[in-house]
Amino acid sequence: MQKLDMRVAVDAMGGDFAPDVVIKGSLLASEEVNKNTKIVLIGQEEAVRTAFSQQNQPIPSNIEIIDAPDFIEMGENPIKALQKKPKSSISVGYNLLKNKQVDAFCSAGNTGAMMVGAMFSVQLIPGIIRPVIMAYVPKVSGEKGIILDVGANTDCKPDILAQFAQLGSLFCQHVLKIPVPRVGLINLGEEEEKGNLAVKEAHKLLTNHKHIEFVGNIEGRGIFLDKADVLVCDGFVGNVVVKMAESMFDIIKKLGISNEFFDDFNSDVVGASPILGVNGNVIVAHGASNDLAIKNMILLGQQITESNITEEIRESFIVESSVK
Amino acid sequence: MQKLDMRVAVDAMGGDFAPDVVIKGSLLASEEVNKNTKIVLIGQEEAVRTAFSQQNQPIPSNIEIIDAPDFIEMGENPIKALQKKPKSSISVGYNLLKNKQVDAFCSAGNTGAMMVGAMFSVQLIPGIIRPVIMAYVPKVSGEKGIILDVGANTDCKPDILAQFAQLGSLFCQHVLKIPVPRVGLINLGEEEEKGNLAVKEAHKLLTNHKHIEFVGNIEGRGIFLDKADVLVCDGFVGNVVVKMAESMFDIIKKLGISNEFFDDFNSDVVGASPILGVNGNVIVAHGASNDLAIKNMILLGQQITESNITEEIRESFIVESSVK
Repeated sequence: MQKLDMRVAVDAMGGDFAPDVVIKGSLLASEEVNKNTKIVLIGQEEAVRTAFSQQNQPIPSNIEIIDAPDFIEMGENPIKALQKKPKSSISVGYNLLKNKQVDAFCSAGNTGAMMVGAMFSVQLIPGIIRPVIMAYVPKVSGEKGIILDVGANTDCKPDILAQFAQLGSLFCQHVLKIPVPRVGLINLGEEEEKGNLAVKEAHKLLTNHKHIEFVGNIEGRGIFLDKADVLVCDGFVGNVVVKMAESMFDIIKKLGISNEFFDDFNSDVVGASPILGVNGNVIVAHGASNDLAIKNMILLGQQITESNITEEIRESFIVESSVK
Repeated sequence: MQKLDMRVAVDAMGGDFAPDVVIKGSLLASEEVNKNTKIVLIGQEEAVRTAFSQQNQPIPSNIEIIDAPDFIEMGENPIKALQKKPKSSISVGYNLLKNKQVDAFCSAGNTGAMMVGAMFSVQLIPGIIRPVIMAYVPKVSGEKGIILDVGANTDCKPDILAQFAQLGSLFCQHVLKIPVPRVGLINLGEEEEKGNLAVKEAHKLLTNHKHIEFVGNIEGRGIFLDKADVLVCDGFVGNVVVKMAESMFDIIKKLGISNEFFDDFNSDVVGASPILGVNGNVIVAHGASNDLAIKNMILLGQQITESNITEEIRESFIVESSVK
């Protein structure tokens, strides 16, 4: 199959070790992306070129640099920073995404600014109540599932949880190629009457949801078993679950144990997460991302662009709105 | 030190494998309890005696049997079951506890019935808003911490979370002998402005709390590190955390890995949890508890009775009420 021409933008200034680690990761990615994919690095041009020269490598022909003289620090207030810094790498990146000059935008920088920037620029897909950050969940069986939300929304009403279920299902269908993704609701018991107020109501909505395959509640002990492809929870619970899982990699390593299953918990390598529900392909990653994590973030940007997931979500929700 | 005379009651009919496993566990415990501790088995006398005879062992002199002709099943509605079955082992056990004929009551049976039974019989300690179930958290450092709530309260207002902090601190002081327990608030970020609505408010209450040593927010990745002795969260989050930790033991075992640290996640053995905030020493355990878990539940019953934790909680909250 002929691959489409594609431009994946990367925030060269995003992350605790930017721009050096971002440049290293981009060089790694430049050797693995499709022939027609271009990596577009956005950042302070001089700093980026210096970082390249320190690698003693010419800039590959599939990497392009776009100057953004300013950047947003990790701890800055997202809204204020975006307003104050229209020439920051995140602002410039979102402008390019909005104007369709790039197909995806990835950053290991300030996640809050990436969220708010998406809402301001490409905006929410009509019908979506809240954007959501998802993460992969490794299964003991070797399969891969997803969990959402993992931090964008701390207090979630039942209808928002139900939307996460649908967004997660669409992601599994179009990106992971799971024809009928099983949706589970993270809960403190398997019985349907269990849960906090929001989760109990969400259970009812999911039971009657026409667009998803709901398999019921999943307890903490079922998260890494192959019981569901999509795990739904609010961003508070999802964040605790994902960070606790990541800590298992560190603990295992510290205890001198090595196992492939736990390698998938290594946040340095696999921490990139799409933001779903916005009008564009957006990926965020941990600030502590290393070069491998940056490479994987870029490859994920390419993968979700190829999958056409954003368009698929838009079509699903437009059809749904018109049916109502 | 001369140990006090003590009677630890055990629900002989509680758990998926009762009464056989409870009898086996009681026999194990009977060899390890203090000289002056008596184990009081409550259940259908004939079934209990049959279970003993199947062990081909005489009933030890430190085990006593009290007949309770009825029992509450695992799936029964707690309130209805307690009303309908005044001669169930749980009802009889709580009557004995209320009348101070036993010093502690332990059960691997219906946790809901154990919670409701406590509220009906021994009742809440004055000043306590909600009872709470705690669990131990193993630390990579080898230390032991606690987490609460792990399932009794799914939706928690900030003042309830603050009480959990105080109850957990008292437990660590008097049972784990930690002079100044560090209290952490489970959250999705370390910064104080992070959290869902309840947790953000709880952070303020904990910051100004006179009776605890608050060390701030603890993320999912910090749960097994030695950052705090008491981890505070609502029962939904705590339940997911604890069950996910327990699943790690199963996963590790399945992967053929063996490590002491993960042995502490083995819910069959260490799953017993005190209920704090009620006027009596109450311990619950997993329905799937094996004989070792039952033994440990009984020894924990002895330990918390010795620690005088219930009286210490009562005194703290009475003093506090009178100060207000």
